[in-house]
Amino acid sequence: MVKSFKIEDTAAKLVEKSTLLKVLNYIDTVDLKTPVLLMDGDRIKRNVAIIGSGIGNCKVYYAVKANPSTEAIRFLSGLDVGFEISSEGELNVLSGLEVHPERIISSNPVKTVDFIKSAYSYGIRYFSYDSLTEVEKLSQHAPWSNLYVRLSIPNEGSEWPLSKKFGVEIDDALMLLTKAKERELNPMGITFHVGSQCNNIYSWNIALDKARLLSDMARDMGINISLINIGGGYPIKYTKSVLTVEAIETHINKLIKDRFPDGSIAVHLEPGRAVVGDAGIMVSRVTGKADRPDGEKWLYIDVGVFNGLMESIGGIKYTYITETRGGGDVMGINTGIKQNWTLAGPSCDSFDVIAKNVQLYEPEVGDMVLILSGGAYTVSYASEFNGCRIPETLIV
Amino acid sequence: MVKSFKIEDTAAKLVEKSTLLKVLNYIDTVDLKTPVLLMDGDRIKRNVAIIGSGIGNCKVYYAVKANPSTEAIRFLSGLDVGFEISSEGELNVLSGLEVHPERIISSNPVKTVDFIKSAYSYGIRYFSYDSLTEVEKLSQHAPWSNLYVRLSIPNEGSEWPLSKKFGVEIDDALMLLTKAKERELNPMGITFHVGSQCNNIYSWNIALDKARLLSDMARDMGINISLINIGGGYPIKYTKSVLTVEAIETHINKLIKDRFPDGSIAVHLEPGRAVVGDAGIMVSRVTGKADRPDGEKWLYIDVGVFNGLMESIGGIKYTYITETRGGGDVMGINTGIKQNWTLAGPSCDSFDVIAKNVQLYEPEVGDMVLILSGGAYTVSYASEFNGCRIPETLIV
Repeated sequence: MVKSFKIEDTAAKLVEKSTLLKVLNYIDTVDLKTPVLLMDGDRIKRNVAIIGSGIGNCKVYYAVKANPSTEAIRFLSGLDVGFEISSEGELNVLSGLEVHPERIISSNPVKTVDFIKSAYSYGIRYFSYDSLTEVEKLSQHAPWSNLYVRLSIPNEGSEWPLSKKFGVEIDDALMLLTKAKERELNPMGITFHVGSQCNNIYSWNIALDKARLLSDMARDMGINISLINIGGGYPIKYTKSVLTVEAIETHINKLIKDRFPDGSIAVHLEPGRAVVGDAGIMVSRVTGKADRPDGEKWLYIDVGVFNGLMESIGGIKYTYITETRGGGDVMGINTGIKQNWTLAGPSCDSFDVIAKNVQLYEPEVGDMVLILSGGAYTVSYASEFNGCRIPETLIV
Repeated sequence: MVKSFKIEDTAAKLVEKSTLLKVLNYIDTVDLKTPVLLMDGDRIKRNVAIIGSGIGNCKVYYAVKANPSTEAIRFLSGLDVGFEISSEGELNVLSGLEVHPERIISSNPVKTVDFIKSAYSYGIRYFSYDSLTEVEKLSQHAPWSNLYVRLSIPNEGSEWPLSKKFGVEIDDALMLLTKAKERELNPMGITFHVGSQCNNIYSWNIALDKARLLSDMARDMGINISLINIGGGYPIKYTKSVLTVEAIETHINKLIKDRFPDGSIAVHLEPGRAVVGDAGIMVSRVTGKADRPDGEKWLYIDVGVFNGLMESIGGIKYTYITETRGGGDVMGINTGIKQNWTLAGPSCDSFDVIAKNVQLYEPEVGDMVLILSGGAYTVSYASEFNGCRIPETLIV
């Protein structure tokens, strides 16, 4: 049966039309078990080709946490991109696919001892840090590794601003670089993170100003900074337009050339969301509908806060498209008009509410609901709470 | 090596001392891979023996979502208690242990068609509902089943108040009972939920008043209500004292006798937290420490918001006990004084912060941190975000 979806201009503008059409074609050819995350491989390829290309001397490491499924990582391992990991679990996915250790770095500033040991033994030699306890662990279990210290920077303009969990001010960073050198490590880099889904181009200014200042102070202590890891943070489109990769990178490249004019600095970039986010469309089905006492219309679908859409409670507003059969249905409701819906997930937890006031054509029980730009930070956060299935990731 | 923990009076008061001592003894005998959830089987037995015993004609169904681990369910399946489930995933755990279908009910008001089919085929005959689409699904896939309609009630006084996701007002409930009867189902019960961790004894008054009113109206329509499912909601101790099971049940029993004086009404109870919560102690280890720019002291442990302590961001404040070796350590810090700490989980996500301003004796990297009353809604919400391991549940 050919499924029917009314694609509004706004939705088509928000997601690459070719990605949407590819997913719609795929849905029509197979009997899909939902929820499932369909990823457009061509879109991932194009994202990988673009990201980092606007910055000189730049290597790109995909942040595995954005989508750590074996399917996504296998696909990415065939492209010209490295990987940023944080734990034994993430290392296991890469080692299972025999990804070369030179393609892997770890920017988790606080790592478990077990992870440091296995990462080092696998051959990984680039680690971030921001505390004395980390210097101690790395000196014992990863001697002579290349270390980059994490600076704390303001996160205004980011949808997911970072707390003070990670990062130090310049004086402490200098002390940590010195300590690392004393403990037979190779402190050689500086990192920072502007926060996820960052739409404020000036966040990178402050960050690179601080990095330059620290770099100068380090040189005076005999430590040569040859690497700036600028983290991730590139935004993608959900319900509104955002800065383009090209605009961000033109800006960053100019900042780096200006702050580090001798051209010797290497740049590491760790995009996650920007690599896989807009390449993925989450496909779910309607499990129920209800009119609640206060007049709200509720739509229940088989993916929710706990099994895939955790970011919906952290500020991400997705674009939804419902299947519209048209005509009557079991309850005799006409499906031709857009109405205001509250969307809820499949668990019994009343916290499992994904969105409010979403304008949708009314679907029936069993119909599909597409969730656009669902490729990043969806399956990564998913749990099997209440026995609900975690969506599989499929590359189409 | 015998581990050293300074147990304050407050902590001992909050958790059954026998549970704490049993866990401490266990920790000393084995080389524990953390994070791990240790559960005191005797405490679970005592909880099961007490809960429901104060209410006449009452059957107890453990809410599987509270801790769905095979270890916990296997242990509970050997006790005199039923199970409340919501999904195929939860049914699979029970069917794997060959739990008899008469011991199982499902109170998820919006179920997937696949779950209804497999539950019915397994032999389950008690289902909750609160919408017309659910009547339709149940009439097709679970004919003549016993249905209980979910009423909406106020949730003041609950730590996790329920949204308007589930439940209808009396008029709609009456309509749904009538529709179910028309569609060859057996509408015979009423349910409600006062909200999780409910510490307001009067929540049950309003709920039972509404149930009584609906029951009378249903009788006039020729529908006999013979079951009240009073949901869960019994609170447990985290950092402060709560209503006792005995006090709550004396109150509820009196309310039921008063509202349904002829004694014919059966009562179903669905405790989750109250069965396993205070029986569990989460055991984690310190992975790092840091002094952050603003003077905050941060402690990083191997369990966090995403791999076990999701409720910490929803209002639950746990009691923490740190291992205290005493004497000096690698950084030369003295461990004899309690200080104010921010506790963070193992992921790179800056949202992964468990608690602020917790007074703790300073532990060292590798030392253990015990999290009391960690048996419920911990592993259930856990995901492998950032490759971090989900704690195993062990009965000790």
